[in-house]
Amino acid sequence: MSADRLIRKIMEKKSVLCVGLDPVVEKLPESLRKDIEKGGKTLEAAADAVFKFNKVVLDAIEPYAAVVKPQIAFYEALGVPGLEAYRKTAAYAKALGLYVIADIKRGDIGTTSEAYAQAHLGYTDILGEKRRAFESDAVTINPYLGDDSNHAFSQWAAKEDGMTFLLVKTSNKTSSQLQNQKIGERCVFDVVGDMLKESPFAVKGDFGYTPLGAVVGATHPEELSQLRSSLEGCFFLIPGYGAQGGSADDATQGFDARGLGAVVNSSRGVIYAFGEEEDFGAKIAEAAKKSRDDLNAALERAGKKYWEA
Amino acid sequence: MSADRLIRKIMEKKSVLCVGLDPVVEKLPESLRKDIEKGGKTLEAAADAVFKFNKVVLDAIEPYAAVVKPQIAFYEALGVPGLEAYRKTAAYAKALGLYVIADIKRGDIGTTSEAYAQAHLGYTDILGEKRRAFESDAVTINPYLGDDSNHAFSQWAAKEDGMTFLLVKTSNKTSSQLQNQKIGERCVFDVVGDMLKESPFAVKGDFGYTPLGAVVGATHPEELSQLRSSLEGCFFLIPGYGAQGGSADDATQGFDARGLGAVVNSSRGVIYAFGEEEDFGAKIAEAAKKSRDDLNAALERAGKKYWEA
Repeated sequence: MSADRLIRKIMEKKSVLCVGLDPVVEKLPESLRKDIEKGGKTLEAAADAVFKFNKVVLDAIEPYAAVVKPQIAFYEALGVPGLEAYRKTAAYAKALGLYVIADIKRGDIGTTSEAYAQAHLGYTDILGEKRRAFESDAVTINPYLGDDSNHAFSQWAAKEDGMTFLLVKTSNKTSSQLQNQKIGERCVFDVVGDMLKESPFAVKGDFGYTPLGAVVGATHPEELSQLRSSLEGCFFLIPGYGAQGGSADDATQGFDARGLGAVVNSSRGVIYAFGEEEDFGAKIAEAAKKSRDDLNAALERAGKKYWEA
Repeated sequence: MSADRLIRKIMEKKSVLCVGLDPVVEKLPESLRKDIEKGGKTLEAAADAVFKFNKVVLDAIEPYAAVVKPQIAFYEALGVPGLEAYRKTAAYAKALGLYVIADIKRGDIGTTSEAYAQAHLGYTDILGEKRRAFESDAVTINPYLGDDSNHAFSQWAAKEDGMTFLLVKTSNKTSSQLQNQKIGERCVFDVVGDMLKESPFAVKGDFGYTPLGAVVGATHPEELSQLRSSLEGCFFLIPGYGAQGGSADDATQGFDARGLGAVVNSSRGVIYAFGEEEDFGAKIAEAAKKSRDDLNAALERAGKKYWEA
């Protein structure tokens, strides 16, 4: 399998925008916060409000984005009811035809990563019955445990026509602390990149991309450009655009000459764009449209028009 | 805060055994598998059986272990019902007085790790109400994103008298792929060790240990011994003993001269020790007792009798 399914969605939507779904209770619209108060400020009430919010967000952004990325941590913080809201959110997004990248950043010894992969990319075998725990098209994964872990995920991605996105160079401030340490002339993140290039699962599809993607932050445009050259065939998920400080022009460094090979994530910049307004769906749609156009304009400036590819 | 609360439990129980709770449906006792069949082989039926199993396991091992380590991946594979079984398992273990290390291996950018830390070490603030999503005393965390991530967890550990265990050198086969890469004369895992030593949260308690622990596998006894010297004051969680191939004598390399500073995990070797027998609780208790005695005997051979410390 490959990245073809994802790339076809991008070309169909004419959008490289990925919208991050990172719900935080105190940032919800006032009407939903009132519902939580009425519900006794419980985990259940908060989780219900989050799912209601996400449905409005998903309906609003659907015309302008091909991909969404729920960040499971914010649902885990709401306990079991939060994880039910996560499950329903991912299922609702898939039903709308959006490509769902579960931002889980999991990684463990082989047998344990296998359980995570079943949970998020595949299914769990319960005495012969296949049951899906959560639904997503792709997952983010952590490289620290090496290929025992990576391959457990890649195998399920291959089986289910999904994808994995390995953390290579993250967008946060202390990403350099370990990731930029020098191993000879190269960086730790280059060695992680090798895992992607040398994997038996790195099979290219019609557009030249494998199902083994990488997370590379927009906040480090030089490294993004360098990794674009060294990781040919590897699709990028680019966080850090918008609220974290990366610009659309920075993000274009992660695309190939055809304007393919990446999606750019914005979370807070889109889903909390409503300020004091109660008609928050319209404001979120506007912000998503603006981000899509911003990215497309930057790609055009860079001579990378994927919509003509 | 520090590792004092954990060390006091170890000394009270006279046991350095940590029992891993890694439930897998097909390995459950026959009576519980029959319940799952009767329940339609659903996620709910599987999760119910897992919690019943865990209660028997916890009652059985409680006299012989100070610490338990539920591996959340195996619960996540059973979806939302599985995570409810996870929540109840951790709560039941705490009610029995066991020290609970949530084996979650999370790590993300700062604001996201903060959400994970609230979920597992602290509480979530829902418009002014404090709600606990899951209950545990400590968590395992992944170093790839650096101190933005580490500190979000350490801060909550300090606030709640809990602990964090940073992955330093894991027990799996491909752990060397990244962890043993050479940065100058040192290994990647040594640089990760520096994060523990240089953290502002590395404050020692009465026994000389900080709340910032490390995961170091028993399957690499030389590195375990070397890290014991270099990471003074850092408490070790040692996986890889038993089913993964590490011996009790190997594991003693992770202890200080007083026999303190580590717990040794066994999962499959204890919880699946019942073979065909229906009285599985008694068999599991026997296996836990045997593992405890095996570890204590190895420490005695090494001249590290913590029960006399």
